[in-house]
Amino acid sequence: MPENDLDTYCAANEQRHVDELIEFLRIPSISADPAHAADVRRNAEYLAEAARKAGFHHAEIIETAGHPAVYAERLVDPKLPTALIYGHHDVQPVDPLNEWRTSPFEPEVRDGNLYGRGAVDDKGQVWMHLKAVESVLAVRGELPLNLKLIVEGEEESGSVHFEEIVDAEQARLRADILVVSDTSIVAPGIPSLCTGLRGLAGVQVQVQGPALDLHSGRFGGDVANPIASLAEILASLHDPVTRRVRVPGFYDDVREPSADERALFASVPFDVDEFRAEAGDVPATIGEAGWTDRERLWARPTLEFNGIWGGYSGPGQKTIIPATAGAKITCRLVPNQDPQHIAELVRDAVLAAAPIGVTVTANAVGGGRPVVTSIDHPAVQAASRAMESVFGITPALTREGGSIPPVESFARVMGLQAVLVGLGLPDDQIHAPNEKFTLDMYFKGIRVLGRLWDELAVALRTS
Amino acid sequence: MPENDLDTYCAANEQRHVDELIEFLRIPSISADPAHAADVRRNAEYLAEAARKAGFHHAEIIETAGHPAVYAERLVDPKLPTALIYGHHDVQPVDPLNEWRTSPFEPEVRDGNLYGRGAVDDKGQVWMHLKAVESVLAVRGELPLNLKLIVEGEEESGSVHFEEIVDAEQARLRADILVVSDTSIVAPGIPSLCTGLRGLAGVQVQVQGPALDLHSGRFGGDVANPIASLAEILASLHDPVTRRVRVPGFYDDVREPSADERALFASVPFDVDEFRAEAGDVPATIGEAGWTDRERLWARPTLEFNGIWGGYSGPGQKTIIPATAGAKITCRLVPNQDPQHIAELVRDAVLAAAPIGVTVTANAVGGGRPVVTSIDHPAVQAASRAMESVFGITPALTREGGSIPPVESFARVMGLQAVLVGLGLPDDQIHAPNEKFTLDMYFKGIRVLGRLWDELAVALRTS
Repeated sequence: MPENDLDTYCAANEQRHVDELIEFLRIPSISADPAHAADVRRNAEYLAEAARKAGFHHAEIIETAGHPAVYAERLVDPKLPTALIYGHHDVQPVDPLNEWRTSPFEPEVRDGNLYGRGAVDDKGQVWMHLKAVESVLAVRGELPLNLKLIVEGEEESGSVHFEEIVDAEQARLRADILVVSDTSIVAPGIPSLCTGLRGLAGVQVQVQGPALDLHSGRFGGDVANPIASLAEILASLHDPVTRRVRVPGFYDDVREPSADERALFASVPFDVDEFRAEAGDVPATIGEAGWTDRERLWARPTLEFNGIWGGYSGPGQKTIIPATAGAKITCRLVPNQDPQHIAELVRDAVLAAAPIGVTVTANAVGGGRPVVTSIDHPAVQAASRAMESVFGITPALTREGGSIPPVESFARVMGLQAVLVGLGLPDDQIHAPNEKFTLDMYFKGIRVLGRLWDELAVALRTS
Repeated sequence: MPENDLDTYCAANEQRHVDELIEFLRIPSISADPAHAADVRRNAEYLAEAARKAGFHHAEIIETAGHPAVYAERLVDPKLPTALIYGHHDVQPVDPLNEWRTSPFEPEVRDGNLYGRGAVDDKGQVWMHLKAVESVLAVRGELPLNLKLIVEGEEESGSVHFEEIVDAEQARLRADILVVSDTSIVAPGIPSLCTGLRGLAGVQVQVQGPALDLHSGRFGGDVANPIASLAEILASLHDPVTRRVRVPGFYDDVREPSADERALFASVPFDVDEFRAEAGDVPATIGEAGWTDRERLWARPTLEFNGIWGGYSGPGQKTIIPATAGAKITCRLVPNQDPQHIAELVRDAVLAAAPIGVTVTANAVGGGRPVVTSIDHPAVQAASRAMESVFGITPALTREGGSIPPVESFARVMGLQAVLVGLGLPDDQIHAPNEKFTLDMYFKGIRVLGRLWDELAVALRTS
């Protein structure tokens, strides 16, 4: 089949491919919010049916103690290589809702972009896979390899039960390569393949002062203020000058990037003004002393505060000493930091910094380990060729600062290596209001994945 | 008229006096929340009507640019002394609502206490004045002095427009003494009269980082986190060892209490375990080094954090760098600190502590000045006798850590001295869930005020 048959089919079906994705995005599959549990299930059922329609022979719901996952397969011939696609069908919460230009679950196309929660992270990129399978089957009648698909419903709330699925379903999930589309390229004109992801570890802190809010006149001056205590604890966790994380042992297991790796990082274009604009017009970049912006994002660990609360935040004054205050902390990890160990180190540092007069509790939550795939892996090379054939440019080899814990589970539990073919853009505003998927990337992505199966079938047969 | 006529009348009408107060407390007059503006107005109208019924000859609404006040008077004879009663009919917000045992605006009597928002602060104590007037008129037919009543609707949101009323209505408000019932006695068996109040100054801080929430993986490590910046700023405002406020110039105008004053403070019983229990079972008292618990509460200034917010506080994780974080700060002031000057000093310290990578704004809001009334003032002596005749014990002379800015306005604008006859108790949980007024104090208060007018009529005629 000449390649342009696929291109012709894709071009002719673009409008339908967008319309279908819009319908999928209407389901508010927010996994972190228990109130949306039924929506996440409906979303899974919708996706399973769509996988069948796209050409998977079998599609089913996999139950967990939390939200359900979807499994599908099209097994062509046991002698052919097998690829496993991983994605997630759940989405981030949508607050602050008033900052969305249009409702997060009423998707809208504006200026060549599709806006809506999950447009690119990750429902849009999962849909891209379905449409690639549909397109290859439409123009050729069969796939050049065996394809399996596993799409979980809890990635945005920590993939809590996903490793249980990997453990229990190892036989069915067995494959020669894992393909994941949940990352971004460097820029619209600079395609790239991601070869590394940071890991994640979390700690939630709660400071308990008085059993109830107190009048700040009657009690103020002689009782510890939980917000003051929390501020002291949080402020103690970074060095104010070097911006290094000030948690004993935090850097002990960090494998520092080699000179070669640092040179590779430096070869990928980085425009600090463009980055500042993408980062919501921050006045300056700032981070750990001694490392470039890229290195801080790809190869250095972080400790971030994701939320803080306590006392009165409404209009006017409320002159209280609040009973409690709390904060959410997550760390981004690099090889060879262990998530559970780091979470415990942070928890211990929080507890050690607790001032007198309050009771501090902190819960350590492990997350995914950092993962790095060799740039010489034949699947990375195959993906590079598929991408080059659509973009006309050899993709850069990058890393991402984010985490995809399931990728780490597959590596650790099943020894499965991953190739990360993501078509997002840096300004897609994932996890924020006005998330979008640029339609040109969506359409190119369908064509890249259509070609990827040919490239992988060859690369993995001969490797 | 023998005194026991008043006591007999009061005893016979206790149930009705409680039932009427309950009806008044049902109106949710939360002045800080614009959604309750109509309720505050309805509350004012209800109070004006109740003042007429109690025996004031004239009662009217005084409009402001914010919430309305109520003015009433019963002018007996221009040759008699005149007392002006001040109170407020607005109440604090009620969150956290789920910590109330019964709904804040459906008052309930349990174990001799009346629970509900405003029960003691200050609607219950205003009602106590109406019932004292009603009772004196019922048993005697006339008051022994001229009485005026001004009850504002914005005390819990900073008395923003009250000084305009004092300015505009000076002629009508003219009096020989100001009587305020918005404070507490030391304990049920230890009556006391408050002779000093701390002042108030406020600053609201807003930290702006990125224009929108960012993905903590994609951007984490190279962008300032507004919560981290805010924590650093807040932590810089106290010395972690001495707990002194670390704002340049903060203590410059503080008049330190004399040895005599410190001895007077020390003569009032203070049980640290009881205080810890009243303060919601805090594990320890803590405050500025070098001062006793009492002194920290009555004679030393404070800087408190009343609220903090930023990022995600819902269930589960949300791995963001939030766009913004903010906090509310108020200071309690002592003579001779100036509220506007202190607010500006705190604002400047906040701005000076701002780290790079974020934009910090801070608004300084002045409040009431601290006030101290001489313990030799004839009205203080008169109030002492009235209280002793009901409690059987000479009241202690105390101060309060809280602020009543209008008391300061009357002193500064009209030269009017105040006597503070409050019948609250330290465990009334004002500004917190489950606010209550102990009914024994409410009933005693009506009798104390009934006697106070006789004592004041004599003391101010002969003074």
